[in-house]
Amino acid sequence: MKNILLLGAGRSASVLIEYLVANAVKETWLLAIGDVRVDHLPASVLTNPLVRAFTFDVHDVAQREEEISQADVVISMLPALFHPLVATTCLEKGRHLVTASYVPEDIKQLHAQAQEKGLTFLMECGLDPGIDHMSAMQIIHHLQSQGATITSFKSFTGGLMAPESDTNPWHYKFTWNPRNVILAGQSTAKYIENGSYKYIPYPRLFSRTETFHVEGYGHFDGYANRDSLSYREPYGLQEIPTMLRGTLRRPGYCQAWQVLVQLGLPDDTYFLDNPQEMTYRELVESFLPAGNEHAPLRERIADYVGIAPDARELDMIEWTGLLEDEPIAMMTATPAQALEKLLTQKWQLSPGDKDMIVMLHLFEYELDGQKQKLTSSLVVLGDDEVHTAMAKTVGLPVGIATKLLLHGSLKQTGVVVPLQADLYTAILKELQPYGVQFQERVEVLV
Amino acid sequence: MKNILLLGAGRSASVLIEYLVANAVKETWLLAIGDVRVDHLPASVLTNPLVRAFTFDVHDVAQREEEISQADVVISMLPALFHPLVATTCLEKGRHLVTASYVPEDIKQLHAQAQEKGLTFLMECGLDPGIDHMSAMQIIHHLQSQGATITSFKSFTGGLMAPESDTNPWHYKFTWNPRNVILAGQSTAKYIENGSYKYIPYPRLFSRTETFHVEGYGHFDGYANRDSLSYREPYGLQEIPTMLRGTLRRPGYCQAWQVLVQLGLPDDTYFLDNPQEMTYRELVESFLPAGNEHAPLRERIADYVGIAPDARELDMIEWTGLLEDEPIAMMTATPAQALEKLLTQKWQLSPGDKDMIVMLHLFEYELDGQKQKLTSSLVVLGDDEVHTAMAKTVGLPVGIATKLLLHGSLKQTGVVVPLQADLYTAILKELQPYGVQFQERVEVLV
Repeated sequence: MKNILLLGAGRSASVLIEYLVANAVKETWLLAIGDVRVDHLPASVLTNPLVRAFTFDVHDVAQREEEISQADVVISMLPALFHPLVATTCLEKGRHLVTASYVPEDIKQLHAQAQEKGLTFLMECGLDPGIDHMSAMQIIHHLQSQGATITSFKSFTGGLMAPESDTNPWHYKFTWNPRNVILAGQSTAKYIENGSYKYIPYPRLFSRTETFHVEGYGHFDGYANRDSLSYREPYGLQEIPTMLRGTLRRPGYCQAWQVLVQLGLPDDTYFLDNPQEMTYRELVESFLPAGNEHAPLRERIADYVGIAPDARELDMIEWTGLLEDEPIAMMTATPAQALEKLLTQKWQLSPGDKDMIVMLHLFEYELDGQKQKLTSSLVVLGDDEVHTAMAKTVGLPVGIATKLLLHGSLKQTGVVVPLQADLYTAILKELQPYGVQFQERVEVLV
Repeated sequence: MKNILLLGAGRSASVLIEYLVANAVKETWLLAIGDVRVDHLPASVLTNPLVRAFTFDVHDVAQREEEISQADVVISMLPALFHPLVATTCLEKGRHLVTASYVPEDIKQLHAQAQEKGLTFLMECGLDPGIDHMSAMQIIHHLQSQGATITSFKSFTGGLMAPESDTNPWHYKFTWNPRNVILAGQSTAKYIENGSYKYIPYPRLFSRTETFHVEGYGHFDGYANRDSLSYREPYGLQEIPTMLRGTLRRPGYCQAWQVLVQLGLPDDTYFLDNPQEMTYRELVESFLPAGNEHAPLRERIADYVGIAPDARELDMIEWTGLLEDEPIAMMTATPAQALEKLLTQKWQLSPGDKDMIVMLHLFEYELDGQKQKLTSSLVVLGDDEVHTAMAKTVGLPVGIATKLLLHGSLKQTGVVVPLQADLYTAILKELQPYGVQFQERVEVLV
C-alpha cells in the first residue's frame, strides 16, 4: 500500500478527491485527507475504508510532522502561503510533494536539498499554472523540432461560466478564491511586444484588453497578467519579440471593472474609517468629490469616470447593489474587503450551475520562410456547482502527477515545474479522457 | 558652555547653521556639525572657533554614542529614516533631541521612557510639519477661546519659486528631496468633507485640485495630502465636519503631473528591464499600447490619456526632455528613479534663484450665531539658491526651539509636537523678525 496525504479539501479539491478515491483500490492507495474542516466531504468519501479524513492545523508542528512522515507523497491544496511550511516538513521527513501553485522564492531555494534527498517537489501542476505550461511547451517543442522560429506567443486563461449558466450581466461567478479575483492585476503588468518592453500600471490594465473569438463559444476579452517576461527563460523563448500572458473575461466585464478601479474600490492598502456605519452607497460616495450630492449617483459616477450615464458598465455596477443603501456591516474593512463581501453574495454559484474554463494559446512563427499562426484552444465545462471545470482542471493534473510519481515514472528530483516532455506528455495524455483536449488551427499569414 | 550637536548639514540646514553660529557667542554654545560630508560648509563656519565640523556615519555606533554623549541637545537634520537610531542613542545617553520630521511609530513608543528621564524629544518642528502646526493651533485656540465652533479647516503648504525665479513651464524647481516630490501622493488621500469620509486613490489625486488666490502672488492649486483625518485628534477638532491638508503647486503643474501618473512614470514598485539601453522616449513608449508607432508620440500620449494634442500639459512634458532620444543611462532604475534623474537636471536651482514658501489656512466657524471665514496666509521668499525660503522655514523653528530648550523654557518632556500654546507662542514670536509672518483676513459668510 502507498500512503497519500492530501492537505486541503476545499472547493477546488473535489474532483481531485474523487480521482484519488476512484483509483485507490486498483493502485493500492491509502488516502489521508486533512483540513481545518472535513465534515463537508461526501459520505461516500468519509466512509470509504481506504480514506481517513481528519481535522488538520498546518500550524500544529507535531501534527504536521506526524502526518507528513506517514505519507509516501504529500499533496498540498492549502492556500499557497502555507506551501513553504509544508515543503520544509516534506524535506525534513523525506517526502515527495505535489501542488497546483506557483513556486515561491522560499521553495525555489529548497531545490538542491530536495535533489540531494532524491525528492520530487512538483509545483505548478494545476490549471494556471499547470495545464497552461504543459500544453504550451508541447507546442513550443513541436514547432522548434520542425525548425520554426517563434516570433509571438500570447496565452490566456479564464475561469468563466458555461453559456447555459451565464445568468448575470457580468457573465461571471466565483469558482476560485474571490479575494484573488478582487485584487487581480494590482502589480504592474509587464510584457514584450515587437521587441519593446511594455508596462501597464493597474489603473489602466482593464482598459487595455484584446478580444478573441472561440468557435462555438463567442467572444472573450483578455487582460495582461503580472510578469509575462519571467516566462521567456523557462519556456526557452529568451529572444522572442512578443510574449504576453493574460486572463480572459467575457466582453463587458473588464470595462465595468475598470470603473470600479477608477473609483478606487478594489483597494486593499488601507482600512475604511467607519465600515460598521457605512452603506455601500456611502462607500461609493466616499470616492466622489463633494458637491452636487443631489444629482443622481449614477450620473455623478458617469461624469467622474468619463462615460455616458446610460453606459452598460453602470447597469452592471447597479446590479451588484453598490449604489444601494445596504449596510456594509463589517467591523473593519478595506474597500476591497467590503467589495468582496458584496460580490461573494452576487457571484455565487447556484445549484446545477456549470462553469467553463477557456484557455487560448496564440503562436506566430516562421517555418520554411513562411509566416504562420497557430491557435490552440481548450474549453472545459463543469458538470455542476461542485464538479466544476475549475476543480477538474486544477485537480486532475495533480492527481495524475501523483499517480505517476508513485509509479516511479517521474524521474526528475528537486523543485520541478512540468515543462519537460516526459512530464507533460504523460499528464496531458491522461487528461484527454476527462475532456481536457485542445483544438488546434494553423493559418498561413500573408 | 552648552554643547549642540547638529547631525545633517545638507541643503535644508544652511539657515539653521547660520542661526546657531550667529547665536553661539551670546548664548555660549559650542556647535558640533556632523554629516557624511562637511567640506561644502562655508569657510566662515569651518573656521569659527566655536564650531567643530566632522564626518559622521550614523551607522558607526561608537561614533554615534561618543558624539551624542558629549552634547546637551542633539538636532537631527538627517534623512528621516535615521531618526529612530539617533533618538534611541539620545535616550540611552540622556540627551534632548530636536527634529523637523514627523514622529515615526518607533519614536512615539519612546515617549514614556523619555519622560522618565526628563528628556524632551521635540519633533515636527520645521515647516510642514512645524510652522503649519504652530500657526494653525494658535488660530484654533484663539477661535475656541472666543466660543467659536470650527466647522471647516483646510490647510495647504507649498515649496515653490518666487515670481522672479519662476522660469520654467512647470513653475517648479526642487528645493527639497526630489525623491519625495516624485513619489508624492502615492498613498490614498483621506479627508472628511461635510461629515462624509472621502478617499482619493493616487490615480485621481492630481486631477482633484482646488484653486486658491493669494493677494499679490496669484493663483495656486492644492491637492490633498495622505491622511488628514489623523490630525483631528491632536488638533482638538474630533467632531469637525470638514478637514483637509494638502500641498500647493502653481496652476498647470498638477494637470501635467496627472499625465505622468496616467502613463505610469512615477512608479517606484518595480525595476525596468533594460534602463541601461533605454532612452527616455522609449520609456514613455513602454507605457503606450503597441501599434500606431508611426504617429507622433505626442499625439499618441494625448490620445491615450484623453487630452488634446496641443494641450499645455504636453508642452510641459516635452520641455522635460521625456520625449527625446536621450539615454536613461542607469544600470538599474524604477520608472520613478529614471524620472527623478531627468527632473533633477531640469528642476535645479540656478545661482541667485529665489524660492517661495506659501502656506494657507482656511477656517470656517460659527461665532455668536454668525458664519465666518478666516484665511491666514504666509509667504516667505528665499534670498538666493542657498538661503532658500525652504531652509529658513525648516531651519529657523528648529534653531529657536533648540535655544528655548537650552534656556530651560520648554517644560514638556517625552516625545513632543509643538501644538501647545507655550511652545508655539514663543517660537512663532521669534520667527516674525525673519519674515515668517501670517496675514489674516476674516469674512462674514452669508
